[in-house]
Amino acid sequence: MIKVAIIGCGTIASNKHIKAYMANPEAEIKYFCDINRARAEKAVADFKCGIAVEDYSIVLDDPDVEAVSICTPNHLHAPISIACMRAGKHVLCEKPAARTYAEALEMRKVQRETGKTLNIGVVNRFNTGVNLIRNMVQNGDLGELYHVYASFRSHRSIPGLGGAFTTKAIAGGGALIDWGVHFLDIVMYCSGDPKPLTVSGQTFSKLGKEIGNYAYINMWAGPPNPAGTYDVDDCVTALIRTEGPVITINGAWAQNIGVEEMYIDFLGDKAGIRLQYGKDFKIYGARDGALLETTPVFNSRDMFQNEIDSFLRGIRTGEKSPAHIDTVILSSQVIQAIYDSSEQHAEVILNR
Amino acid sequence: MIKVAIIGCGTIASNKHIKAYMANPEAEIKYFCDINRARAEKAVADFKCGIAVEDYSIVLDDPDVEAVSICTPNHLHAPISIACMRAGKHVLCEKPAARTYAEALEMRKVQRETGKTLNIGVVNRFNTGVNLIRNMVQNGDLGELYHVYASFRSHRSIPGLGGAFTTKAIAGGGALIDWGVHFLDIVMYCSGDPKPLTVSGQTFSKLGKEIGNYAYINMWAGPPNPAGTYDVDDCVTALIRTEGPVITINGAWAQNIGVEEMYIDFLGDKAGIRLQYGKDFKIYGARDGALLETTPVFNSRDMFQNEIDSFLRGIRTGEKSPAHIDTVILSSQVIQAIYDSSEQHAEVILNR
Amino acid sequence: MIKVAIIGCGTIASNKHIKAYMANPEAEIKYFCDINRARAEKAVADFKCGIAVEDYSIVLDDPDVEAVSICTPNHLHAPISIACMRAGKHVLCEKPAARTYAEALEMRKVQRETGKTLNIGVVNRFNTGVNLIRNMVQNGDLGELYHVYASFRSHRSIPGLGGAFTTKAIAGGGALIDWGVHFLDIVMYCSGDPKPLTVSGQTFSKLGKEIGNYAYINMWAGPPNPAGTYDVDDCVTALIRTEGPVITINGAWAQNIGVEEMYIDFLGDKAGIRLQYGKDFKIYGARDGALLETTPVFNSRDMFQNEIDSFLRGIRTGEKSPAHIDTVILSSQVIQAIYDSSEQHAEVILNR
Amino acid sequence: MIKVAIIGCGTIASNKHIKAYMANPEAEIKYFCDINRARAEKAVADFKCGIAVEDYSIVLDDPDVEAVSICTPNHLHAPISIACMRAGKHVLCEKPAARTYAEALEMRKVQRETGKTLNIGVVNRFNTGVNLIRNMVQNGDLGELYHVYASFRSHRSIPGLGGAFTTKAIAGGGALIDWGVHFLDIVMYCSGDPKPLTVSGQTFSKLGKEIGNYAYINMWAGPPNPAGTYDVDDCVTALIRTEGPVITINGAWAQNIGVEEMYIDFLGDKAGIRLQYGKDFKIYGARDGALLETTPVFNSRDMFQNEIDSFLRGIRTGEKSPAHIDTVILSSQVIQAIYDSSEQHAEVILNR
Repeated sequence: MIKVAIIGCGTIASNKHIKAYMANPEAEIKYFCDINRARAEKAVADFKCGIAVEDYSIVLDDPDVEAVSICTPNHLHAPISIACMRAGKHVLCEKPAARTYAEALEMRKVQRETGKTLNIGVVNRFNTGVNLIRNMVQNGDLGELYHVYASFRSHRSIPGLGGAFTTKAIAGGGALIDWGVHFLDIVMYCSGDPKPLTVSGQTFSKLGKEIGNYAYINMWAGPPNPAGTYDVDDCVTALIRTEGPVITINGAWAQNIGVEEMYIDFLGDKAGIRLQYGKDFKIYGARDGALLETTPVFNSRDMFQNEIDSFLRGIRTGEKSPAHIDTVILSSQVIQAIYDSSEQHAEVILNR
Repeated sequence: MIKVAIIGCGTIASNKHIKAYMANPEAEIKYFCDINRARAEKAVADFKCGIAVEDYSIVLDDPDVEAVSICTPNHLHAPISIACMRAGKHVLCEKPAARTYAEALEMRKVQRETGKTLNIGVVNRFNTGVNLIRNMVQNGDLGELYHVYASFRSHRSIPGLGGAFTTKAIAGGGALIDWGVHFLDIVMYCSGDPKPLTVSGQTFSKLGKEIGNYAYINMWAGPPNPAGTYDVDDCVTALIRTEGPVITINGAWAQNIGVEEMYIDFLGDKAGIRLQYGKDFKIYGARDGALLETTPVFNSRDMFQNEIDSFLRGIRTGEKSPAHIDTVILSSQVIQAIYDSSEQHAEVILNR
Repeated sequence: MIKVAIIGCGTIASNKHIKAYMANPEAEIKYFCDINRARAEKAVADFKCGIAVEDYSIVLDDPDVEAVSICTPNHLHAPISIACMRAGKHVLCEKPAARTYAEALEMRKVQRETGKTLNIGVVNRFNTGVNLIRNMVQNGDLGELYHVYASFRSHRSIPGLGGAFTTKAIAGGGALIDWGVHFLDIVMYCSGDPKPLTVSGQTFSKLGKEIGNYAYINMWAGPPNPAGTYDVDDCVTALIRTEGPVITINGAWAQNIGVEEMYIDFLGDKAGIRLQYGKDFKIYGARDGALLETTPVFNSRDMFQNEIDSFLRGIRTGEKSPAHIDTVILSSQVIQAIYDSSEQHAEVILNR
Repeated sequence: MIKVAIIGCGTIASNKHIKAYMANPEAEIKYFCDINRARAEKAVADFKCGIAVEDYSIVLDDPDVEAVSICTPNHLHAPISIACMRAGKHVLCEKPAARTYAEALEMRKVQRETGKTLNIGVVNRFNTGVNLIRNMVQNGDLGELYHVYASFRSHRSIPGLGGAFTTKAIAGGGALIDWGVHFLDIVMYCSGDPKPLTVSGQTFSKLGKEIGNYAYINMWAGPPNPAGTYDVDDCVTALIRTEGPVITINGAWAQNIGVEEMYIDFLGDKAGIRLQYGKDFKIYGARDGALLETTPVFNSRDMFQNEIDSFLRGIRTGEKSPAHIDTVILSSQVIQAIYDSSEQHAEVILNR
């Protein structure tokens, strides 16, 4: 039985991580830790197990705890992950790895020093449909994959305007780091995690900047705090050359175009795939002069369950996860390069 | 009465230019010129006027002719335009200006030396809807226009595979120069023809490369010629920084994604517009906390008629056309930079 | 230039055969022959070529004529085909080959004696979609093809009730020989023309038997002749074992079930196909645990044009057609066996 | 009050039989018997009555028990039914009667010897809609019923792959015996239980044979057991001549055609009926030249309640049930003949 601690008991923890640990017969949650004590206590009450604590040093000091899920705001990902690894714990840290590439590199350094597991919560790597696509790409079904276009554009979806999500010192960034990390990671994963070469991009902070004037219908993690901070990007565009396909992205937490376009197009010279994010996908090919459109139907196992199961299994077996910091750090590097390119108004060269 | 010569009597000439001259009371077509004599003679018969000639030097030598429409394949745009201007003719040359930026610069140089009119057939500058959008942008209705995304992506639309359209020596390029020129020119026109600063792009020549294996349903300017040439781009992506908005484009004559997405998104911080190419547009804004979607309905005057009328009026009045080489050369410069960036796998800096 | 005679100038001749010969640059129609002289003369007038004759012995006697299309009622297929081959003509005879298997065997015998071409108008062998399916089956894409179900069931479609179509002495049979021949032939063709082994079937002559009481909405080749003959099958069911798949058929020119179900299901252990007769098809497969439904889109060349072109090309080159009597005779054998099994109320064994 | 024992306390027992006995004022359940003691005990707890036993000899030995419902896997139907009748009990045995016709004959023999009731759970004979159809057929509303087509084809519905359902020694067969028994029995019942004459059929065991590679979305009685047995039919086709209509069936627990087609077509020369299995039906007729489509709407009494009520009433009154072994044995004979014909690749003659 692996003893687990949950650090940060917000939405993602209670809806996803905790449930998945509860459903795994090899894990037992010993601590629910949150600086907001009420949240930790609610978890104890809801899940009928564990001890509520405020200070995560209690977790660090308990040699019983083998595994930790870190579900805090982004600015705490690096320091807590590092502290946990140094205390001998295996870590599953929510995405993004960190606010900056420098922080992520530091995390990887400590992972290598300590030899502890450090997986990042890029949960789409455990999504059934995404893995079907990856298999097809890697199997050559698409021929040469030359271009990928990822669109994560929403009309109005800034989360918690004025709060942690829109404060750079906490979140590290906005639409790019919050949504883009998922889209870029899916692209990297399905493309075989190719090395990025050049990155030219631009981010924009426009629609949320006058908090009181932002018109919206629903707000996740809302309502807005008119006295809060808004210094992150709500729109991004970038062009990334890699050793594999060229990647183009357009993203917006909010834009004055009334559409939701959340998809990734994989363009191969033999076939292509449009994945509707979080939903299904279609395959487009050709044969004997006929154009083929294929709709797959399949059962999806809960991807968070897969993620947690894989984390726990890896602790036992040493098996390296597809969400290991070694591969996930590539999208961290790309995201950093987009922010850098945007500041410099020029392309950034990563490897050449 | 302005005496006109038509050089090149193919589809665009007979369907558009000639009809518009016929409908303008101040113009009279004196020559139909085509190296394929039958086409020139057919025009004489169909339109019941003019003289059929094969050699355009007859046009050059006739001092009666004031104005020339050049509707030849792209590789003849520069030499014929230049010869006409040097012979004292005003020129309306079909788009793209030329195969390369160097050719276009040479055309502009001769225009400046001779003082003759040199308009390029960027006919969307005479489109009613496009002008409504331009007026809104220039008037500040969109607030700051920070990003423009142009999508010209088709499932299967390579024209005349193996023929003039897909032979670089004739056409200068593929999807980018043939379709992209229209989309980029609309973007530049509506944005106030801002100076381009950096260009990073990649073009791909994939789906047409095995001519015999290209699956398709209909082919404009077809059927394919299996023994012909295919050395142009069928897919392009690029990111362009300008003194105005950042521009991202995705284009494909053909792609293994079964959609037709032909539109331009203008993203402003007060409002935005999605223009469906060749069709209508929608305006997205907000007011007093409400999100507004506005559908304009309007009468469109035939844009080719506007183009020809403007050309003829300019000859009489000296009024500079929005399609003058001085402004159109900007998209020529951007297209060249995309091809250059693609070859160098790196961003090209134009002005800084 | 191949000189052609058309024997029988009814609907199938004028709508299909004649037009296809006119569109083939290597053929020239010399005779239009019909016992109804007015029909032959109308063809001469409509198509502005050829000579109208009533007696097909004129065709037989003209050494100029190389090729003949036989578009008469079924009872004349055998005698005229045989006479033409004996007179040295190549023959394309409309389907079914003949009224009975015995007649078809006689035709094949004469074909072998004379060495002349004898193709049967099983035109679906020249259908683009059918050939795509055949290629997939033969290529193993369906795995083992173990069962085929052909449904040709209509609510009300008895043609020309009381006329040639419903008179056994003329037509040889009803729904089975008129529609079933197409469905069985597609099945045989796509399955690789496997040898039939056992046939158990039953035909029924029910809904047309009281001609005056037959309720219907539209009637092809109508209206009904209350004084005419109705002694053919309007419904059929059969189970056929072959060296390849087992085949089940249900057919009805008319039935008291208000549906039109005109399709063929090809069931393989790796994938399956439902072909909507005369329309499109869908492919059903599986991959990595996902169920795939694929819709092909393709250009169809006119199948009658393909049929005639293939007939003419075969005359020049000696190339054996997929519609040669040697393969088509298999469905003739199966149809005969269904009629025999129906009379005997017992399975017929063909090969074992 | 009739004392009842339930032997086998799985799904069909608890969802159907037990509830119906509880709702009948003349019955009282004394024993819940299951070799899995926990299931028997759960029934006692859920229904708050009876005694949980593992060994059905306790039932046999208790003279108090008059009636027994046998809801075990198929291989126990014959031995337990026979033991119960010999012990003086009236028996309602779930369908199919037995794994083989020989077993069913043995059951009938013992029924005749003992004089006890032996009804089979062909519950559709107690379905309101089915009885409406039977009445119409028997009343001559359809005229001569000449052909019946039963389709029980599903895309993916193999139950409990690798378990009892797919193990021949337990279940006796697959799609044919599990689903076909219902469809054939409805056909026989509505047609007046005509004597079968000839049977030609073929069964196939294809889609489940590689248990690990079977793609599916949901599985009833699942999940699959990769180490289990799969030696039953997943597809069947057959043609059956009877003293009444000819019957054609196509059935599939699974097939690579993405449809669910579960219906029976009754073709009469005056009218026809399509029954959607488990749902409603439509009547197609004609009158005064008009084609009529009639949709009946009616209240359905729960068919399991009808079945149990009829069983209990028969015990009191001696009234013979429509589900008596004497009539149900006909479909047992037909099913056996289909399996035999499939093995012999030839038609089986039953009566002539």
